[in-house]
Amino acid sequence: MINRAENTYYDVVGIGNAIVDVLAKVGEGFLTERNLPKGSMTLMDAQTAGKIYADIVPEREVPGGSAANTVAGLASLGSAPAFIGKIHDDELGQEFTRDIGAAGVDFFTKPLAQGPVTGRSIVLVTPDAERSMFTYLGAATHLSEKDIDEEIIRAAKIVYIEGYLWDVDDCHSAILKACELAHKHNRDVAFTLSDTSCMQRNREKLLEFVEQHVDILFANEDEIKALFAEDDFYKSLDLIKPMVDIAAITRGQKGSVVVNGRTKTFVEAEIVENVVDTTGAGDLYAAGFLYGITQGRSLGTCAMIGSIAAAEIITHYGARPEVSLRGFVRNKLLSYGKRA
Amino acid sequence: MINRAENTYYDVVGIGNAIVDVLAKVGEGFLTERNLPKGSMTLMDAQTAGKIYADIVPEREVPGGSAANTVAGLASLGSAPAFIGKIHDDELGQEFTRDIGAAGVDFFTKPLAQGPVTGRSIVLVTPDAERSMFTYLGAATHLSEKDIDEEIIRAAKIVYIEGYLWDVDDCHSAILKACELAHKHNRDVAFTLSDTSCMQRNREKLLEFVEQHVDILFANEDEIKALFAEDDFYKSLDLIKPMVDIAAITRGQKGSVVVNGRTKTFVEAEIVENVVDTTGAGDLYAAGFLYGITQGRSLGTCAMIGSIAAAEIITHYGARPEVSLRGFVRNKLLSYGKRA
Repeated sequence: MINRAENTYYDVVGIGNAIVDVLAKVGEGFLTERNLPKGSMTLMDAQTAGKIYADIVPEREVPGGSAANTVAGLASLGSAPAFIGKIHDDELGQEFTRDIGAAGVDFFTKPLAQGPVTGRSIVLVTPDAERSMFTYLGAATHLSEKDIDEEIIRAAKIVYIEGYLWDVDDCHSAILKACELAHKHNRDVAFTLSDTSCMQRNREKLLEFVEQHVDILFANEDEIKALFAEDDFYKSLDLIKPMVDIAAITRGQKGSVVVNGRTKTFVEAEIVENVVDTTGAGDLYAAGFLYGITQGRSLGTCAMIGSIAAAEIITHYGARPEVSLRGFVRNKLLSYGKRA
Repeated sequence: MINRAENTYYDVVGIGNAIVDVLAKVGEGFLTERNLPKGSMTLMDAQTAGKIYADIVPEREVPGGSAANTVAGLASLGSAPAFIGKIHDDELGQEFTRDIGAAGVDFFTKPLAQGPVTGRSIVLVTPDAERSMFTYLGAATHLSEKDIDEEIIRAAKIVYIEGYLWDVDDCHSAILKACELAHKHNRDVAFTLSDTSCMQRNREKLLEFVEQHVDILFANEDEIKALFAEDDFYKSLDLIKPMVDIAAITRGQKGSVVVNGRTKTFVEAEIVENVVDTTGAGDLYAAGFLYGITQGRSLGTCAMIGSIAAAEIITHYGARPEVSLRGFVRNKLLSYGKRA
């Protein structure tokens, strides 16, 4: 685990889809009328995305992408993160690059000069604060082995990969290269299952990948059950145990569980009174958790930091922190009698 | 918590009954014929103890006493412990003193020159490895405020008190003085509930004591349920949560749970193939756990160290380690991929 990491200058390098989120508030009817699935991420082509786009009133355009949100959260916590992901050298791509740089994340991946435009995700937020995502991946699907820079992987304590990349066959070789380089340099591979629909499309392959390559797994309750096609949550915890060093499983208002060898640590959720938009909750939990890991905190404290970071993100639209998470987390930890 | 402790030269000072254990193997019938309760600790006068003693074939005389076992375990783990408890200056008392000193524990309490003899516990081990204890406390009941040396309490990071002392009204003022001195010097008070029968005799007082004075509570599943007169184990975990900083609850083969603020950490038990005598399992769990705490380990690791120390003690008769726990624990932790 992490104490092997020497001569690093990044805490975490995230690899994922470079995406700009287009946020819109809609009523429940908007989804049902169009037969759009709620609460998950649905991939679509440019044309279908365009049709939804035509019917909404965009609230805001904000930088998104699961792993990109996580590394932005890590920067806000005071970590040194980098990001690898593919944009097109277009206006949206430049916006993504400016935003992630301004957040404090190193981002050097060469943009596409031709081919599909920068990816975008229409995020429809219903009155219950649930988000349903409709994503056109665009340039993100062109992430290739060439984009995985050995020097960046070697320089980071942890490589963090989003499971959404598994939806794109072309990205598999890039992911595997990143894992191989990480382990070659004694670094840890963290991976998030990302989405149940993504899970169902890729279950067998994902299981094999997790077992062979992943040291730290993130998932929510539905995803870990889906990974094993298992209805019993506690059984799925026992199934993941021998496969990874650490599994951090989020459960919404029920908190989270960290499975690590012979220990299972159950951590309460933060109480959030006004949940506005749950987009990015899982991404920011991962940010807080990985921050704790790179700081050598106990797994219970890692989970608490994850929950605190997630609690900030769901009080506003968008999946990038709107306060300095460093101070936000420090104050919360101190209020629980923990050192910051 | 523990990081407040400065200028200490002891890790833990234990306060408890100074007892010599007389071990004997008996069949199940021995207990039922005499109507003796199984699995708990029964207090008796010298005469009644003498009657049981007349009927057994003593296997061995070994130093015992719950907190005394714990500090002996701490010494074996590499900690610097001390012990406070009352013996008579008789042969058994001298044996107790030699044994605890040889184990590496500082023990300075002035022995009784007159009055009751040194306490002894007849430990009957049935073929199922369960132990039933019949204790004549003797000199141990004469522990008084005068025996609580402020300098020793100040010098220790943690004061560890066994709940058996609550069976003796005269010891209450000694316990309260130890707690007050500990908190005066910013030290932590650890306490073990010791026994369900002891619990039932003292429930109300104990609850008040735990809430007012205890930072780290040890108990087994039955004891924590008995403390709250609560049948539901998980409810009793929620009830203890606001009362102490840390509650470490053992559950035999089901492992242990550590409750700490917003986290509950479930840790698997060690697998022990030949359980010979469960005497001292709880005492040694406390030793391993407190060792971890004083070494700044995570609560999950503290519980693992506790389980490992307990696993050693139940493979042989008696409640004092028969190997160096330092090496025993280090090797087990390394086999789980943890640093030693």
